Amino acid sequence: MMKVGIVGATGYAGVELIRLLLGHPHVIIQRLTSRAEASVRVDHLFPSLRGHIDLAFEDPGAVDFGDCDIVFFATPHAVSMNTVPALLDRGIKIIDLSADFRLSDIDVWESWYGTTHVAPELVSTAVYGLPEVNREAMRDTSLVACPGCYPTAVQLGFLPLLEAGVIDAGRLIASCASGTSGAGRSAKVNVLLAESTETMKSYAVQGHRHLPEMEQGLSQAAGGDVSLTFVPHLAPMTRGIHATLFATLTEPSTDVRALFNSRFAGEPFVRLTQGDYEPETRHVRGTNVCEIDVTQPPGETIVITVTIDNLVKGASGQAIQAMNLMQGWDETTGLLAPAVNP
Amino acid sequence: MMKVGIVGATGYAGVELIRLLLGHPHVIIQRLTSRAEASVRVDHLFPSLRGHIDLAFEDPGAVDFGDCDIVFFATPHAVSMNTVPALLDRGIKIIDLSADFRLSDIDVWESWYGTTHVAPELVSTAVYGLPEVNREAMRDTSLVACPGCYPTAVQLGFLPLLEAGVIDAGRLIASCASGTSGAGRSAKVNVLLAESTETMKSYAVQGHRHLPEMEQGLSQAAGGDVSLTFVPHLAPMTRGIHATLFATLTEPSTDVRALFNSRFAGEPFVRLTQGDYEPETRHVRGTNVCEIDVTQPPGETIVITVTIDNLVKGASGQAIQAMNLMQGWDETTGLLAPAVNP
Amino acid sequence: MMKVGIVGATGYAGVELIRLLLGHPHVIIQRLTSRAEASVRVDHLFPSLRGHIDLAFEDPGAVDFGDCDIVFFATPHAVSMNTVPALLDRGIKIIDLSADFRLSDIDVWESWYGTTHVAPELVSTAVYGLPEVNREAMRDTSLVACPGCYPTAVQLGFLPLLEAGVIDAGRLIASCASGTSGAGRSAKVNVLLAESTETMKSYAVQGHRHLPEMEQGLSQAAGGDVSLTFVPHLAPMTRGIHATLFATLTEPSTDVRALFNSRFAGEPFVRLTQGDYEPETRHVRGTNVCEIDVTQPPGETIVITVTIDNLVKGASGQAIQAMNLMQGWDETTGLLAPAVNP
Amino acid sequence: MMKVGIVGATGYAGVELIRLLLGHPHVIIQRLTSRAEASVRVDHLFPSLRGHIDLAFEDPGAVDFGDCDIVFFATPHAVSMNTVPALLDRGIKIIDLSADFRLSDIDVWESWYGTTHVAPELVSTAVYGLPEVNREAMRDTSLVACPGCYPTAVQLGFLPLLEAGVIDAGRLIASCASGTSGAGRSAKVNVLLAESTETMKSYAVQGHRHLPEMEQGLSQAAGGDVSLTFVPHLAPMTRGIHATLFATLTEPSTDVRALFNSRFAGEPFVRLTQGDYEPETRHVRGTNVCEIDVTQPPGETIVITVTIDNLVKGASGQAIQAMNLMQGWDETTGLLAPAVNP
Repeated sequence: MMKVGIVGATGYAGVELIRLLLGHPHVIIQRLTSRAEASVRVDHLFPSLRGHIDLAFEDPGAVDFGDCDIVFFATPHAVSMNTVPALLDRGIKIIDLSADFRLSDIDVWESWYGTTHVAPELVSTAVYGLPEVNREAMRDTSLVACPGCYPTAVQLGFLPLLEAGVIDAGRLIASCASGTSGAGRSAKVNVLLAESTETMKSYAVQGHRHLPEMEQGLSQAAGGDVSLTFVPHLAPMTRGIHATLFATLTEPSTDVRALFNSRFAGEPFVRLTQGDYEPETRHVRGTNVCEIDVTQPPGETIVITVTIDNLVKGASGQAIQAMNLMQGWDETTGLLAPAVNP
Repeated sequence: MMKVGIVGATGYAGVELIRLLLGHPHVIIQRLTSRAEASVRVDHLFPSLRGHIDLAFEDPGAVDFGDCDIVFFATPHAVSMNTVPALLDRGIKIIDLSADFRLSDIDVWESWYGTTHVAPELVSTAVYGLPEVNREAMRDTSLVACPGCYPTAVQLGFLPLLEAGVIDAGRLIASCASGTSGAGRSAKVNVLLAESTETMKSYAVQGHRHLPEMEQGLSQAAGGDVSLTFVPHLAPMTRGIHATLFATLTEPSTDVRALFNSRFAGEPFVRLTQGDYEPETRHVRGTNVCEIDVTQPPGETIVITVTIDNLVKGASGQAIQAMNLMQGWDETTGLLAPAVNP
Repeated sequence: MMKVGIVGATGYAGVELIRLLLGHPHVIIQRLTSRAEASVRVDHLFPSLRGHIDLAFEDPGAVDFGDCDIVFFATPHAVSMNTVPALLDRGIKIIDLSADFRLSDIDVWESWYGTTHVAPELVSTAVYGLPEVNREAMRDTSLVACPGCYPTAVQLGFLPLLEAGVIDAGRLIASCASGTSGAGRSAKVNVLLAESTETMKSYAVQGHRHLPEMEQGLSQAAGGDVSLTFVPHLAPMTRGIHATLFATLTEPSTDVRALFNSRFAGEPFVRLTQGDYEPETRHVRGTNVCEIDVTQPPGETIVITVTIDNLVKGASGQAIQAMNLMQGWDETTGLLAPAVNP
Repeated sequence: MMKVGIVGATGYAGVELIRLLLGHPHVIIQRLTSRAEASVRVDHLFPSLRGHIDLAFEDPGAVDFGDCDIVFFATPHAVSMNTVPALLDRGIKIIDLSADFRLSDIDVWESWYGTTHVAPELVSTAVYGLPEVNREAMRDTSLVACPGCYPTAVQLGFLPLLEAGVIDAGRLIASCASGTSGAGRSAKVNVLLAESTETMKSYAVQGHRHLPEMEQGLSQAAGGDVSLTFVPHLAPMTRGIHATLFATLTEPSTDVRALFNSRFAGEPFVRLTQGDYEPETRHVRGTNVCEIDVTQPPGETIVITVTIDNLVKGASGQAIQAMNLMQGWDETTGLLAPAVNP
């Protein structure tokens, strides 16, 4: 059994990691840190875990993770970059759910996150943890930078078309909606139930931190520059990302459904609808599945709809998928329970 | 006091008409019909109206509306066209919330609605009831065809840009979300709370009945053909339409905000955000307001976000706005109460 | 036109007061204060009020209300007691939505609120603002202490039975649920959408600050001591109080429905169901109505169900009802719009 | 591997059985019947099960279950009683989630369900499947009648007190709330999202079919007659039962928390809070856990709060717990995944 630690274990990605790791047959949760909740029992803060875990949160300053084989960072940006280098030096594998090692261009990162990157030398060695793109590289690294939630959905939806070169890479549009858990487990007025239920709104239309991450991945797929207009929305629900993607088909005779079927053949967590239903976030709630439909209404615009659970395939589930690959375990280990519906 | 009747008064548009008409100073609700609830008291079916109205629903077959000055149809499609001609002949003004008189091309209407139009001669005399476009014509007609909910939001968002000729009319995209009341007050599994809360989905991507109505209005604004890709979504909430519109700016130096300010100057129910906040459906819930923001993120794509209440500006409120115009009353009469928030 | 001010205008009771006062024909909103949002325009913080109000919030320390006839306090407890005496001295009428003047027993107040009362001499002159009990006294006072939300629902439900002496006053049970707006418009993790939607919980079973207020009112009605077990719950919704009350009938032959009909005959805001439907919070949302049903299932236990909108009849609407009485206006002025449904 | 069948597999209890059985290591789902969806693939109707199950629903009339070891009935009342006798004769074990074999008094059953019981002789041999009461009998039966959702919560909350004889059995009160999935997966207007979100209501105050089932179980625990007032409510959420129970303590010195700890010691699915938090339905969502808190506010009334998932411990999970006992497997097999939160 491998021993794992989680830094930042009281946020939504952190507690989702705990839940999923508890069902994983090859690991033991060894240490959980939280600055705000140090010394509080996990099952006191999260009663749904009562009987499942016997640990308390520890102060991150007091833990050196020497007894851990793998450490997950479920922290805000600009935290993991301070600690990861030393942990890697000691042979600990790192799976970082934050943004610190996602962008290969340090200037772009510093510009969007407004601070100096303190471990730029590690950025080029980190593997961007989207298994559908980087599976082999993920098997051989000690540092995975897990994709953001929106970037996971948007990239998986556009990849087959960009790789095949059948759409205009200069006119990509992504209209996405997220549940409010995407805003984190911290007290903010705008995501109070009384402020965010029974309403829809866009936000950050002028620019969102996930944009450069998407552009980086989509450019790699396209083999050249892309132009993406990305509009995120807040939906009145807890979990889920729904992405509606628009692209202009440059090869009108393309059988786009066949293209998707071929590109994702054998992918354990990509579910293509074949047109018999439309993706819904509830179909994937609590699971690592990415559900995709592609439709070609009259005209030259292709519509791709994608759903993921922002906390699973968009965060903690994908992190465990990364761990499975890094450890040489079956990639789906601990990730196969179906969604709870209704 | 004018006397009004409502055909189809137990659907969501019908009961919203009742609520709004009860607060209108120049009308009395005279007759309400409902096939399913004939002889049931209104305030028994809708206890929130107890103390406000003393009528019972009547069977539509037993009512001739001879004592009404104005009749609203809040019926499914292919109902009003059977009755409207005779009512008009008797001098009764008609405000039709259904689709029967919206499309000027009878073939298109018959193709989308799958039946023969029985009053095609009236279609050309009906006025499409979007006051921001047809205000003057609405003052002089006896038959208004009220716009659909999605078409109201999508047209108001694109109009200033199309009329000014500053966007590519061949590449319009509308990604819209509706609350489940848009599906009507009838028992369907897919809009049960247990099936539709906490989830987002698209539907009818391949084609939706509101598409030809939008194309008709947008073409008129553009003075030529348009191409629109329209993707509706079901959002986990009761009321509201949120439309996110994408267009390619062909005149990059356009001051788009100034264009919107100018186009909608003096419009009583269009609220432009000036960029200080983003539209939310809760801001307009229960009101006739259409809230619009326009943003130009880096690149040549313009993003317009629009919110309306699907049952008010998208149905019953706009119908009353039409009545006010037809009667020569102040256009805002009975429509000025602010939204209930939170 | 009377000029009114609101202290604490950015909380949910405050903004609901603004909405309702905007529709009141006899008043003008003159001043709004907020410590946190001083100098922010009202319609920037609450876009739904755009076009309806042109004021900005002012710092409470910089406002003396000399130009106001009436001042509402929509503040947390232990605020109004500091300012009210001076305002009363200057002839300004006060309607206090907070708890400061609700409890006639100063010791009880100080024990539950954990601080010293600084204006105890005013407590005996304040009128407890439940019009269904104290209507006449409210007409002749300059200081009304508005009831809390739970106490309004619980008292109105028990009053007819206690006054008639037909139930055991020593065994009263109230199981109540509130929407999350009852927790106020401040950032707290437990009322985030992601924490409070799709779940039900009780809280404060051991004791809640509204308990002594209920006991005070119920004892007056009973003409002697009462014993009440009160369990509040948080329901996954924004607005509304649903109270389910249980009492033991000591006079088995009592016609309880007739008793309620008689007790509340002519009450403009009490709606008795007559058993044809059961009260729902949505029936009264946004309104000042208190909807009550009384049922006698087999056995000697009576069940009374009561719904109000916690922010209207449970706060701001009742405050306006108080103002109407204090000013000699029709009691229902500005309070008659029906609920928006669905 | 045992082979199991499900009759009525498209309702919410049915599909929840499928989900849970898919994770059970000792069974294979062999046959699923549905009158309405015969020949439809399971994963077409429930896309969240895609990749997990390869079956289609079959017409119940065309299936004889000869290849099944165990058959679950997730049917409305008055269905299973027609088929169960023949299946039992053929040696098939039956777990019935419907009401047909729950009430030992045939007259009471016939009176509440309005039809003649066609298999009364089996009623006395059926074991009422509440493991916390009938565990040993459940190990030795071929026919288990699973408890209803409300009865599970209400009985588990009152049992320790009634068995110990420390409360007044003549004055039991249960104020309960259920999510709308309790109304089943059938199209009804009153549980549309637009009708049932953002509202609370009581229903069936005059009498509910679960009442005699509760009285039967509570009387057995009390060793004599009980009197229960039961008020169910519809809460604006999908899943969960929250029960708030009130009882009068007749032995004031009782250490009620110790009583509960003792009564439920070793129970795998009863979680007692020890007063450190209050039960919430989200803590147990998707799980077989029953969470209980007991509080003694000032006075002689005890308050017990209980939460279960109505579709798991209130239906399908408890049915699997029954199967585990009947088969001699570890009682918790397949039932240990923690709740998905948030």
